This record gives sequence, structure tokens and C-alpha cells, in this order.
Amino acid sequence: MDDGKLAGLVTQAANYGLFDRLKTLRGLWRDIAQSLGGAPKIDPELPADDAALLRNQVRECLQGRGGEVSARARAATLGRSYLELNAVGRRNFLKMVADEFGPDTGQVDKAMADVAKASGPAERHAAERSLREALESPRQRLLTQFNALPEGVKFLVDMRAELLPLSKGDPAMQAFEADLKELLSAWFDVGFLELQRITWRSPALILEKIMAYEAVHAIQGWSDLKNRLDSDRRLYAFFHPRMPDEPLIFVEVALVRGIAGNIHDLLDEHAPVEDPKKADTAIFYSINNAQKGLVGISFGNFLIKRVVDSLLHEFPNLKTFSTLSPIPGFRTWLNRRLAEGEDAILEPAELRALAALPAKGEGAPQGFAQLLDSRWVDDGATAQALRTPLIRLCAHYLLEKRSGTSRALDPVAHFHLTNGARMERLNWLADTSDKGVAQSAGMMINYLYKLSEIEANHEAYRGQGKIVTSAAVRALGKG
Amino acid sequence: MDDGKLAGLVTQAANYGLFDRLKTLRGLWRDIAQSLGGAPKIDPELPADDAALLRNQVRECLQGRGGEVSARARAATLGRSYLELNAVGRRNFLKMVADEFGPDTGQVDKAMADVAKASGPAERHAAERSLREALESPRQRLLTQFNALPEGVKFLVDMRAELLPLSKGDPAMQAFEADLKELLSAWFDVGFLELQRITWRSPALILEKIMAYEAVHAIQGWSDLKNRLDSDRRLYAFFHPRMPDEPLIFVEVALVRGIAGNIHDLLDEHAPVEDPKKADTAIFYSINNAQKGLVGISFGNFLIKRVVDSLLHEFPNLKTFSTLSPIPGFRTWLNRRLAEGEDAILEPAELRALAALPAKGEGAPQGFAQLLDSRWVDDGATAQALRTPLIRLCAHYLLEKRSGTSRALDPVAHFHLTNGARMERLNWLADTSDKGVAQSAGMMINYLYKLSEIEANHEAYRGQGKIVTSAAVRALGKG
Amino acid sequence: MDDGKLAGLVTQAANYGLFDRLKTLRGLWRDIAQSLGGAPKIDPELPADDAALLRNQVRECLQGRGGEVSARARAATLGRSYLELNAVGRRNFLKMVADEFGPDTGQVDKAMADVAKASGPAERHAAERSLREALESPRQRLLTQFNALPEGVKFLVDMRAELLPLSKGDPAMQAFEADLKELLSAWFDVGFLELQRITWRSPALILEKIMAYEAVHAIQGWSDLKNRLDSDRRLYAFFHPRMPDEPLIFVEVALVRGIAGNIHDLLDEHAPVEDPKKADTAIFYSINNAQKGLVGISFGNFLIKRVVDSLLHEFPNLKTFSTLSPIPGFRTWLNRRLAEGEDAILEPAELRALAALPAKGEGAPQGFAQLLDSRWVDDGATAQALRTPLIRLCAHYLLEKRSGTSRALDPVAHFHLTNGARMERLNWLADTSDKGVAQSAGMMINYLYKLSEIEANHEAYRGQGKIVTSAAVRALGKG
Amino acid sequence: MDDGKLAGLVTQAANYGLFDRLKTLRGLWRDIAQSLGGAPKIDPELPADDAALLRNQVRECLQGRGGEVSARARAATLGRSYLELNAVGRRNFLKMVADEFGPDTGQVDKAMADVAKASGPAERHAAERSLREALESPRQRLLTQFNALPEGVKFLVDMRAELLPLSKGDPAMQAFEADLKELLSAWFDVGFLELQRITWRSPALILEKIMAYEAVHAIQGWSDLKNRLDSDRRLYAFFHPRMPDEPLIFVEVALVRGIAGNIHDLLDEHAPVEDPKKADTAIFYSINNAQKGLVGISFGNFLIKRVVDSLLHEFPNLKTFSTLSPIPGFRTWLNRRLAEGEDAILEPAELRALAALPAKGEGAPQGFAQLLDSRWVDDGATAQALRTPLIRLCAHYLLEKRSGTSRALDPVAHFHLTNGARMERLNWLADTSDKGVAQSAGMMINYLYKLSEIEANHEAYRGQGKIVTSAAVRALGKG
Repeated sequence: MDDGKLAGLVTQAANYGLFDRLKTLRGLWRDIAQSLGGAPKIDPELPADDAALLRNQVRECLQGRGGEVSARARAATLGRSYLELNAVGRRNFLKMVADEFGPDTGQVDKAMADVAKASGPAERHAAERSLREALESPRQRLLTQFNALPEGVKFLVDMRAELLPLSKGDPAMQAFEADLKELLSAWFDVGFLELQRITWRSPALILEKIMAYEAVHAIQGWSDLKNRLDSDRRLYAFFHPRMPDEPLIFVEVALVRGIAGNIHDLLDEHAPVEDPKKADTAIFYSINNAQKGLVGISFGNFLIKRVVDSLLHEFPNLKTFSTLSPIPGFRTWLNRRLAEGEDAILEPAELRALAALPAKGEGAPQGFAQLLDSRWVDDGATAQALRTPLIRLCAHYLLEKRSGTSRALDPVAHFHLTNGARMERLNWLADTSDKGVAQSAGMMINYLYKLSEIEANHEAYRGQGKIVTSAAVRALGKG
Repeated sequence: MDDGKLAGLVTQAANYGLFDRLKTLRGLWRDIAQSLGGAPKIDPELPADDAALLRNQVRECLQGRGGEVSARARAATLGRSYLELNAVGRRNFLKMVADEFGPDTGQVDKAMADVAKASGPAERHAAERSLREALESPRQRLLTQFNALPEGVKFLVDMRAELLPLSKGDPAMQAFEADLKELLSAWFDVGFLELQRITWRSPALILEKIMAYEAVHAIQGWSDLKNRLDSDRRLYAFFHPRMPDEPLIFVEVALVRGIAGNIHDLLDEHAPVEDPKKADTAIFYSINNAQKGLVGISFGNFLIKRVVDSLLHEFPNLKTFSTLSPIPGFRTWLNRRLAEGEDAILEPAELRALAALPAKGEGAPQGFAQLLDSRWVDDGATAQALRTPLIRLCAHYLLEKRSGTSRALDPVAHFHLTNGARMERLNWLADTSDKGVAQSAGMMINYLYKLSEIEANHEAYRGQGKIVTSAAVRALGKG
Repeated sequence: MDDGKLAGLVTQAANYGLFDRLKTLRGLWRDIAQSLGGAPKIDPELPADDAALLRNQVRECLQGRGGEVSARARAATLGRSYLELNAVGRRNFLKMVADEFGPDTGQVDKAMADVAKASGPAERHAAERSLREALESPRQRLLTQFNALPEGVKFLVDMRAELLPLSKGDPAMQAFEADLKELLSAWFDVGFLELQRITWRSPALILEKIMAYEAVHAIQGWSDLKNRLDSDRRLYAFFHPRMPDEPLIFVEVALVRGIAGNIHDLLDEHAPVEDPKKADTAIFYSINNAQKGLVGISFGNFLIKRVVDSLLHEFPNLKTFSTLSPIPGFRTWLNRRLAEGEDAILEPAELRALAALPAKGEGAPQGFAQLLDSRWVDDGATAQALRTPLIRLCAHYLLEKRSGTSRALDPVAHFHLTNGARMERLNWLADTSDKGVAQSAGMMINYLYKLSEIEANHEAYRGQGKIVTSAAVRALGKG
Repeated sequence: MDDGKLAGLVTQAANYGLFDRLKTLRGLWRDIAQSLGGAPKIDPELPADDAALLRNQVRECLQGRGGEVSARARAATLGRSYLELNAVGRRNFLKMVADEFGPDTGQVDKAMADVAKASGPAERHAAERSLREALESPRQRLLTQFNALPEGVKFLVDMRAELLPLSKGDPAMQAFEADLKELLSAWFDVGFLELQRITWRSPALILEKIMAYEAVHAIQGWSDLKNRLDSDRRLYAFFHPRMPDEPLIFVEVALVRGIAGNIHDLLDEHAPVEDPKKADTAIFYSINNAQKGLVGISFGNFLIKRVVDSLLHEFPNLKTFSTLSPIPGFRTWLNRRLAEGEDAILEPAELRALAALPAKGEGAPQGFAQLLDSRWVDDGATAQALRTPLIRLCAHYLLEKRSGTSRALDPVAHFHLTNGARMERLNWLADTSDKGVAQSAGMMINYLYKLSEIEANHEAYRGQGKIVTSAAVRALGKG
């Protein structure tokens, strides 16, 4: 990866939280590190000489001289140095840790030999334990020290967010990343997470982050957010006790009558507020993972179950729990299919309907592929002509598996099927925003969580790769 | 270990918390487990047939059918079964888990072979990771599932308390215990702990546990406790977010003028309350580990540092931080020394002083050894005759190392020396309770935490085994 | 009232709270008062010279020199002086305030004249307002200043507790007391009260006060209290935001099946804990006003309604809400009736049954009156013979009115009838404690709160003095 | 007042809070009122027939049938009816209450007669008390009932805000308003207020109100607000326990080095954040009363003292406490002075300087008066020419008294002088916003709170009307 790309990555990562946090951390950690005297001045690109300085800091952290309080000061010093590095410097530093602070090969080999020659279970047990210890890398102890720092857990989460793209294709970096993931997995065990309802009474600090982290249906500002927190809406988030200001994952819910099929209706700030006690349906219309550094450490499943429990407790009249979800991979898949030629993928009647559309003048989009890239949703006749083929193809897409696996191709489908939901209803012109058209051809899908079927659906999907659908969706997919 | 002893162990463990918890857990977990139907009725001694039932439950937990919510229900079912077992049944169950749910030997061997034949660092990294995974035992996954249960972490902590005595001399049980310790160590990392001040405003629920867990100077009742929480006293405890009702470790502090040398003065409920703002010295007069199941997972060091910070913030006038500590191993050590003969361990002048004591009548204790076992502290003349030899011998004891190590023989001394304290002053007739006389010959010692020397002391002790003392204690030890 | 009695009163008032509070207030207010220099040393009996000093302090408080912060310091100084007085000194001080700091007679007369000669409504309105202001006494402004002090509201509440017995027969003191009551009534308006559930998680500080303030069925210690807070019990208290550590009134509730008729069953610490979800009945078995200084400022009615709401929310299965109450005036009333002669108040059959009791030996109690003063509840035969007449007479008593009023004679009956309850069931041998026998001849009564009838009952009692009873109680009262 | 104006008043009052509250109250109170059956449909203008309905509702509230819970339901019904009225209807309703539910004239007359003929102090005391009771109007009891409703206190505060403008020139309405003020004064006694620091962690609900209520230097949006809550800023507000979502008064503070003389520097979102620990000066740059309905119930004085205490506790290095305040009445006063002719109020040198300004072309402002109404602050030369006369005249204005009183003419000056501050420094071009130019000719003034002088200043101003100033301001005022 060249340095230009790297710079981009860091810029990208410099979202809301990171910037503010940098400022805060510098202050907090300076005080803690103070007892050790001033930190050395380091070039942000971390050339070899400065890398040697940091290597030394890492070693001092690992030696653990002077008790745990000193250890904390040293970790703070190292952390501050890291925060001052730019993208190139950070890659250099992470690479150094990956290459130099992994498990000791000699010790591992010796421990393996001891296991191999162990006579009897007693010796074997002891030798296996030594082997496990030998496989624990020094950098794991290093990382653990950051937990004792204020905001230290968030620091590690963000470090993993930076490490993940850098580790592609680099086994040493991957091993480092795996160490970090193991640590975070233990700490972020679902038992430690706290479900909180977010309301207009929540701290502005938290609400500001919800706005920054919402990536499915971007929040336009404070009044949009306030609307999503009104009395007929709910927003729940998981928090961790060591990152109390950072939502980990959150879900937005609308309390309505009947399954909602249009996202614009739900987000309309001017729509009247309904009495939530009269609602029979809860629509999960946006689920967001807020922390890139926790990718692969899953709690979405638990979130939905906990939210369903909480909603049922507050509104015993709720009968139906459903999502209103994007189909993010559809157009990408469809574009690939278009390579087969329009004749190959469209039915004769569909082709005829398209051909019958009146000409729009020079340069106007024509033909299936071109139309798809236009704002066709704004033109009634075109939309009408596209409706049948798009719905049919989308149903096909949704039932498709990722090549060579028993896993649904669409990532959102995979998430909800794993949780035990079923594909319930495909909604036409459900999200006509530019993003909605570009990703999902304006369609959205309801995944239905029927409490009595969740376990069976989950098993069927996990075990035999069965994609559970309603009869309606199944019929479309056969079309 | 025979079954009689086992029964005793469980009775012993059935302290306050456990009994109440059993009641609570049964209720809480019944509701969670309910979805799975009734649990099978199991004989508390867990004969082979019933063991097979539980083996099955463990396997179902590990298969993870039906998503995480079902997993939670299964863990609750298994946990409830465990809670119904008696001491024999629990040993049988733990033994089964130790023997049958450790790492898979075949997988480990294969993974080791892969590491051995790895060509190049990339392959080696990947193979090492696989080896680590192979070494992770199924029972670790099992234990992790309990974290998602209410009170589940406390359940595991208590299980370790039961496992520890059973694992002596049994490598499989030791390996199991090591797995559990590893898990708890990650969760109880010092970064997760919260320091709380305990006051008369604290929940009665917590105060009741403080009373039950205080083992150094037993609390006689609510009014004794209230006295220890008065305005010139402080009590701090560490808590964990997943065990909010359970203190992990706590320390009791008296704010006084000058270093205190007598525990009875500090505990006297009728002593006048002093103005804490005028105090120049904080005396740590009792430090208690409250959770047997967290033995070996240390946070005492951090506690003292955090408490010193907190006290300094509230009372900037404090100049001196010192303990008033028992010397629990002295009499045991002295008893062993007595085997050498009184002439060998006492100075001529000391022998003469003892001989000069007037006779007390038939059957009254005579001679050094006999006197030591009597209530000599109540008799002025005897105490006077014993003073010189006991202080001298005690100073010798305190400076002694555990055989073959560089570690102080006395466990309390080892704890404070590791933390960077120094031995400051030996106090005669400082604890004349029966326990104080029986363990420490009525003496207590101050360990001084001088902030500017802590790190150096810690290093000197840890590195070279140097026991740092005041000149006065050193002089006594040379006598 | 002579000084001996006075001293007694203060001793009596020196209950738990007052003593601790004195200590606290002295400290808190010293700091606030400090800016004014040391307070003058005052003789606790407040002789004339010292009274002049305090008179001056009161005047300075009223002049309000130097802004509100200075006013606060002066109030603190005055408050501290008051706290140092003994019973005689306090009476002297209160008398001085009563006599010298009431409304200005001249101003009142002038304002009345202005009202009288007002021409037209506009002048009348203005003159009436001036009259109201003239009637506001300086001491009211004085008392108000204490609100700005920490614990100042509690100080005034306690001052009223001291003032009440002293004001009997003294119109000036009564006027002072009325001023204080008016102030407290505004502050303790029911809208400001907060209902809190008291549990074993409540601060020990609060629990200790609950124990001190429980006067109906004394709490024997912490384990008795813990039992009353178990999962099948509830304890609710009202608090005021300016007295957060002081319960104002509290009620103890047992969740049971069917209406309970025996207090010992409810208080038995060894009785098994029932599943509260299966309860169909809530028994209010103890209601206590905790603050003597709030006598006549009623919130008991609101408490019961709020507790019923809270219970119904938590336990929708509850069908019946009832008290189990003492009949505190019965024996006093019966003793008066006994003057009529046993023949006059007992039925022939009852007399015969008593006569038929076997003789118990010399000096043993004999006859109705004598037996009543003995521990007859412990003797089966005697109790049997007393049962019919006592129940009959008690029912008569309960239906009796206070002479010349439409108000029930029994004060507890009056309280619950005013709230809209009805007399439901008389319980024989329901409270056989010494106090229960001495006051209520061992009987207790259930007052039933039937939600659909409360308003009608309340109106019938308040309007026409109708005592609503069940058919059973009515029948007994006719006997 | 004609109905058009009335409608305007209500529209004006329909600020943020009111609108949201209406929605909320309707819901909350509907549930409470439900037990009484549906409220009658009432014409929002409240014609005579409908007024009769409400008159009846008021009477029912006062009769208090059915206990306090029913009373609450009736108050809720009445409150809901009121909320549905428009401006005309509300005036009609308030007028009815003012005219018909005041004190009973007959009872007052009788009670006055009893006072007049009282013989001896005992009778007099009793009679005065009866007179006080007779003077208490039924509507006071009515108003008190609203305290028991959720949001009921805020309802009364807002009702007073509506009543105040309507009561001008109407003695009956004034008497009603005085009743309401008396009630609110008791409830909003400074002892009940809670100081809270507002931060970016505060609920968005509160922050939104701060933005709506800030009237001195309007907050432009969330990022402006966030800037005012940064680490070198503080915002404190007083709250009342019965209106926890409503700030009563709040103050904004900047922590700086030296006394600030320019408001734009303080409000600049792009200015660097300073380390507050290095600040030596706290600038109170905005103080806002948030509740129109609490006009005349003062707590500003206490707020400043409490904030100073809080700041000193957090930042012991602070040496200086000063405001940066507008001079809101200056231009109005100056406009009146201009009637005397420019020659009369300007010095010859000042006139010459103005005359020397180069001509700006046709229609451009000329002469002192015309220039003052222009954006002269943007033109260096003009501003220079205006500087001397404006500063001189402003100092004159600041030292002027309200006609016939010893009170400073400028309301902000009066507020701070009453609190014991002194006029410290006049700042040229300190607020060049349109509002700043229009009100204060772009100037601002620092009122200095010197802790050691506050009490003396307060007394000097309150007693002898002395306006305390620095030598510099005094010199300007003499010019």
C-alpha cells in the first residue's frame, strides 16, 4: 500500500470521535505520563532512529519496572507517542510491533517438544499449559496495559480499525491483529454490554455520535435526530462499561400499524406522531455498527433480541417485529449479470415493455442498463416498465448464495437470516434516495422476526443453508 | 480427598453470599431456562447416570444450536443443575469437565506438526495461530457462556473457589482451574475495576457483605461497622461492573495524627471522633480480599495507590501513609525455632529475666514456650520479661526469606514490600486479642508507603530481594 | 409547665436523628456562620442578658443587611445559638419570638381601617393586599431564611415539634406555631413529595431511621428489618427534596394470599418467603408518621393511593388492598365503660361463661376487669370465655363517634374512613404482644380499600359521618 | 387591550417550551382526568355559556369532593380546558377567576370586626389568625391543587406569564396575580433551588431550552452552544425539583487571563481553547432569566455567589470575577437627550471632530443623531469621532438614577449594584452586533465582583443609593 492511500485511510478514520478524542487523550495521558519526565520529540513519519526510541518504550512497558502505576505511566507515554504519528509513522510502528513482539519462536519450539515427549496425562496437561503461555506474544501484555488508562480501550479499538486494512496480505500484521481481536473479544463479551435507550434526554455528547455513526440512512441534523427519538420511535444502543461515551451498535425502531414498506414515510419529520400504544408493529429501520475496530466481534443478534424484549415489556400490544432493510449488493450483482446481455436476463414481455417507452430526446437514457443508471424513479412510465424485471431479478439475487458457500450473497440478508429472521416482503419504490437507487434499485425488503420461528430458521440457515422466505418472496424468486 | 472433607469444604464456602445467591440464582435462571422445558431431576451426589445427563447438557451448550439466546437458556439450565449438587456431586461434575472437555489431543498434535513444518514466517504465523486455537479447550467456551447470565460472573468466581482445593495434585483439574483463571484474569483486568468509597449511606446489602468478608479484624456488628465509617475513617472497595453487589477487595483507613501503634485504639467505638482535616497520617489498618475465587488475580497494589490518591485529594494535609499490620506467620515460625531449645534462641540476659519471674503456683505456665501459649499479655511482669526476646525474634523473622527464594517469609510483609513499602516500626502490645497473641505474639508492624521511595523499594525487593526497613527495625533485626 | 417536665420533653425528643443532627448541624453551620466572627457564648438556660443577645440576632436577621449570603450567615449563627440551648433556654427563646416578633398591631389596625374605608373594588383589592402583608409577622421572614441553610428545613420541622407541646394554652405561642405550620404546609405540599421504595439496597442511614421511627410494630433489629424488606414485602416512604435523608411517612406492606388476620405471622422472620407474583392481596400492616414536627400536615391519604398504584403496576394480579390495623383506643374506652359495672355491659351468657372458669388459686385474677389486665391471651379457657364479650364490645367501640362530632372515636378508624376505606373484619388474637393486649385486647381490624368504592365511602363519612362496614362487622356491632 | 393584541401575546408566548409542553400536558393530564369522564367541548374563545361550564369546574375543584385523588383529576380537567382556550378565551377565564374567586368580603369584614373588638392579646392573636384565613382567597387553594399534577408548577409559572401583561390597570387581576406570585415565591424559595453545571453531556432536552432562552447574546445553533460549553467555558443554571427540565436562570462564564473587553472574542467558535487552569479571571458574559412567569422572584444574586464558590473550588487560581455586560438603556436615554439639541449635549471639541468628518455622498448619514442610527462601527474615522462623546455620555448615563428614586437608571446596573458589584471599566467597540449598536452604541461594561467589598457595596447602594465605580469610570462620568 502506497503512502498516498495510507494518508487517505487516516483522513477517513478522522471522523468525529477520533478528532475530539485525540485532543482529550493528549491531555489525560500527559498528566499520567508526567511522572516519567517529558516524552522524546518524535518525527511523525517515524524514521528508523525514532522507531528505535519507540522500540525502547515498548520494551520498557514489557519489563514492568516499578510496579503497575509506573507501568501505566509508561503505557501513557507510548500511547501519546503513537497519537502524534501520521499514517506512515503509524504503519511503521505497527509493523515493528508485528514483526518484533510476536511469540518467541525458540520458546514455542521447546514447549512443543515438551508436549510431544510428555508421558502420561499429567505431564501432557502441564506441557500444554506451558505451550499456551509460550504462544502468548509479548505484545498481548503490552496491549493489556492500555486498559488501565482512561479511554485506553477505545484507543485499542481505534488501533484495530487502523490495523485491519494494513494487515491484508501481511501474515505478521494479521497475527498482530488476531492478538488484538482476541483481547477485545474477551473484553467485549456480550455479557458486559449494556443496553440503553437513547432519547432526547440523552447527553448531547452521545447524540452527536449517533448522528456521526448512522450510515444506513444518514441523519440530516438535530431536528432529524429529534424526530427519530419522538414518542412513536425508539433508539437503542449497546454500551461497554469501559467506553461509556461510545455506542457500539444501535438500532432505530418505528412503532407503526402494519409492516412499513417505505423509508421516506418513516423519516418524514412532518408526519404526525402516532400513539405508540396503538401500534401493532415494530419496524427496525436502521442498524449500525458504530466501531470499525470491533468488526468481526458480533453483538447484533443479541441487540435485536434484547430490543424485542424491551419493546414487548413497554408495549404488550406489539404483534409483529420486522425490519425495513436495504439490499445493498443488488445493483452490483445486477451490473455483473448485465454482461450476459439484456436479452439473456430479461423476459420477452419485459423487453417489450421497455421498448414501448416513448423516446425522451437525444442523449436521454435508453435501454435497461442505461435507464438503471438514471433517475428513473422520478418518471412514472419508466418506473412502471422497470418494475416487473427489477422485482423478479432482485428476488433472484436475494436467494443466491455466495460462491462456494451456503451463505446468502447479500450481507444484510446473511445477518438477518443468521439471526433467525425470514424474508417477508419486497417493497417497490421504498427508498428513492440517490443511494437507495444506486444500491438497491429503490427497493427495500422486510425481514420478519417471528418469535416462535427464530430458532428453527436460524438452525435451518446455519445447518443446511436454507434461506427462509414468505410464500410471496419465494414466488417472485421462481419467476 | 474423602467425602467428609468435601462436605466440610462446601459448608465452609456456604458463607453469607453463597446462601443468598443460591436462592436468587435459582429464581433468575429458572426464568431464563424455562424456554427449554423443565430440567431433569438429578441426584445431588451425581451418580454415573446423572453425570451422563449433565455431560449431555455440556455438549449441547458447546454445540450452540439456535443462536445465542438459546445458548443462554442452556447455560442457565446447566448452571441450575450444578447449584443443586452437593459437595460430592460437584466434585464429580468438575472432574468430568476436567477430564473430558480439555483440548483435543489429536488437534493439538496436528497443529504442532503444522508449526514444525511451516516454511517461512507467513506459514509459521498462521500455524501458530491454529495451534493456539487448538489449545483452547471446549470448556473455555462453556465457561464464557455464563457471562451472559445475570450473576454469571459471580457464579464462575465461586466455582473457582470450589475448584481450587479440589485441584491439588490433580493435573487435569489444575488445567481446568488454569482455564478458569485465564478467563477471570481477562475480565478482572484492573482497568475494569471501579473504586468506591463505602459509607453509612451505602446500601445495607453492601455493608452486610463488608461485615461478612472482613477477616483481619472481625466486625462485631452494625455499630462497630458504623464506627469504622465515621468522619475520621475511610473504607474503600474495588468493584467490577458485572458484580456490582460484591466488593472484590477493600481497605479500611483511619485518619489520625502520627503513626498509630495500637489496633484497639483505632477500633474503640467510644473513642472521640477526630477532625479529619487535622490529621497528618492515614493508617491502612485492614486490607481484605473478599473473593476466594479470585486468588492469584492481584489488585491490592492498585487499590492502595488509588486510595492514596483519593485521600490526598480530599485531605491535602496528609503527610504519611502507613499500615498497621499483623505479622501472621511469626508464632508458627517461632514454634519451629523453639525446637532448637530455649537456650539456643534466647540471650543469657533474656533467660535470666524469665527465670527471675516469681512462681505462679502449681500448673501455672513456666518457661518461654509455655508462657507464650498463655494469656501472658495480661500479666505486666511476664510481658515485661518477654518483651526483649519477642521483639528481637520478631525482627529476625520479618527479615527472613522463604526457603530457596528471595521472597519475604511473612506473607503480609511480602505483599507490602512488593508494593514498595518499607518496614517502619514494630509495635509492642499492639493487638492483645486472642488471635493477635496466637499469631503475632501481640505485636503489629507499620509498613510505610513513602511516595517518593515506592518505585525504588519495589525494584530493590523484586530485583534483588532487598527487604527495605527503617534504621530502627534494622537495628532490632541485628540484635 | 414546670422545668422538670420541659427537660423531659427534650430528652424525649433526643431520639436518634436529633442527636446525630446536632453534631452535623454544628459543623455545617459553623462554617457558614464563620464570616461573621465567633458567636457569643450563651448560657444554655438563656437568662435575660443572653436573651437580649439573641433578640439582637433576630433583629439583625430581619434587617437583612449585606445581601442574602450575609443573611444566611446570620441565620446560621442564630440557629447555632438555638441548638446550644437546653429545654428551659429554648422555651425562653421561643416565647420571646412569640411575644415580640408577631404582626405589628398598629400596622394591622391601620390596614384594617384602609380596607374599611375603601371605595370601590379597586381600592378594596389594594387595601386587602396591604392588610395581608401587615398580618404577615416578621418571624415568618425569619423562619424562611432557614430554608437556605443545609438541613434548615429539618431544623424548622424539629423546632415545630418542640413548639407544639409548649404552645398549649398560650395564644401567642399558638400564633407562632400557626405561622410555622403555614410555612411548612406550603413547602410540604403533596406535589413536592417523592415516593421511594425502601429496600435492602437503600442506604443504611435511611434504614436506621426507619427502625428508629417505626412505632406501630417496633423493629427488633437489622434482621427483623431485612425480613420486612424481603421479596414478598414492600416498604414505601415519602421524602421531600430538602430533607432527602428523612422519611416523612412510611408504610409496610405484605403480599399474601387472602386477607391476613394475624400480625405475628407477618412479622415472623422464620416464615417461608412466598412468591409475590402469586399474591392476590396486599396488607398494609404498619403506617408511621416519622416527623412529629409535621403533625397536622397530612399526606397519609396520598401515600396509600400512590402505593396502591405502584403495587398494581408491579403485581397486576393483586385484587385486594387491606390494612391490618390496631384498635388503639379500645381498652381505654372499655375501662371507662367498666365503671358502669360488669353486669351493665356484659350479657348474661357472657357473665355465666366467665363465672364458669375454674379458679386459678389465690391472688389469680378474677372477674372481667381483672382478667383483662392479666396475660389472659396465654390461657385458652379464659380467652375462650372473653372472646364473645370482647368482640362485641370492640365492634360497639369502633362504631362510636367522638362526643359531639360525626367523627369516629378511634383515631386509626378515623384516618382510614377519611381515606375511603371500610371496616372489613375484626380479628381475634391477632396481636398478642403486651402492647396489643394492653391497647386493643389482642384484636386487630382490617380496613379494606376497595378501589371502586373509595370515593363514595369518603363522601359518606365526610358528609354524613357514615361509618362504612362489612355486613359481618355491622352484625357484631348490633349484638 | 384589544383581541388582536391578545392573540399576539399568546403567539409570542408560544415559544419552544410552551408548544412542546402543550402536547405533553394534554397527554399526561388526559390520563389523570379520565376517571371523571370526558371533558366538555369548549369554544376556544370562551363565550358566556362555556364560561359557566368552567366556573362550575372551578367550584368543583374547591369543594374537594371525594378526597385528594379526585381533586387531582378535577384540577387536570380544568387545566386541560384552559390549555384549549385561545388568547381571548384565556383572558375571559382569568378575569372570571379574578372577579369571582377572591376573598369573601363579608367574611373579611366580620373577621376585621373580631380583631377590632378583641380584648386582650389572646383574643387578638386568635382573631388575627382568622382574619388571615379570611383574606386567603379560594383561588389560592385552587392554584395549589395544580402542584400535585405532573408539570403543574410549570403550568402555573406560565399562567403567571400570561396574567402579568393582562393585569396592568386592573386591580382585580392584580390581586389575582399577587396571589399567584405569593404561592410561587414560597415554592421557589432559594433554598429549594439546585445549581447544576450544564455541559455537552447534559440532556439535549435541556440544551435545546438553553438555546431558546438565551436572550442576551443569542445562540446561533448547536455548534455555537458547544463552543460555550468547551473546557474554558462554564454554564451554570438553577433548577427547581418540581421543574427539573426547565432552567430558571443561567449564567455563562469564560475563563480567561485578564478582564475581557470584547464579546466577539469570547463567542468566536474558532478561537483556540485555553487551558482553564491557567486562567486568573472569570467573566460572566451572559445572565438570563428563563421563566417570564417568575419575574420579580429573584435568585440572580444567589446564583452569582454560588457560581463564584463553585469556580473557586474548581480553579483556586482565579483572582478576578467580573461581568461583561450590555448597557441596554443607553441609546433610549441618549435619544431623549438628543431632543435638547446636539449643541447642548456635546462638547465643542466633539462637535468639531464630527464636523471634520469627510462627506460620504448624498443621503449618507450626517450629524450626531443620524450617524448614531447608522452602521458607524464599520467606519474607522466615524467611530473615532464618536468615541469621545459616546463614552462620556455613557458614563453619565450609568451614574444616573431613576427619577425620584435612589436606584440606578440602567436595569443591568441596578441588578449588579444590588448584588454588591462595582462599575469597573467601559469597553469601546465591545459589541458591534446590530443589537449591540442599537442598544448600547457598541459599548459594554465590566461589573467587578470583589469578594471583600461585596457586602459594603451592597449596603452603600441599598442604603444611600451610592453607585460604586472604579476611579476610571468615575473620571469619565465627571467629564
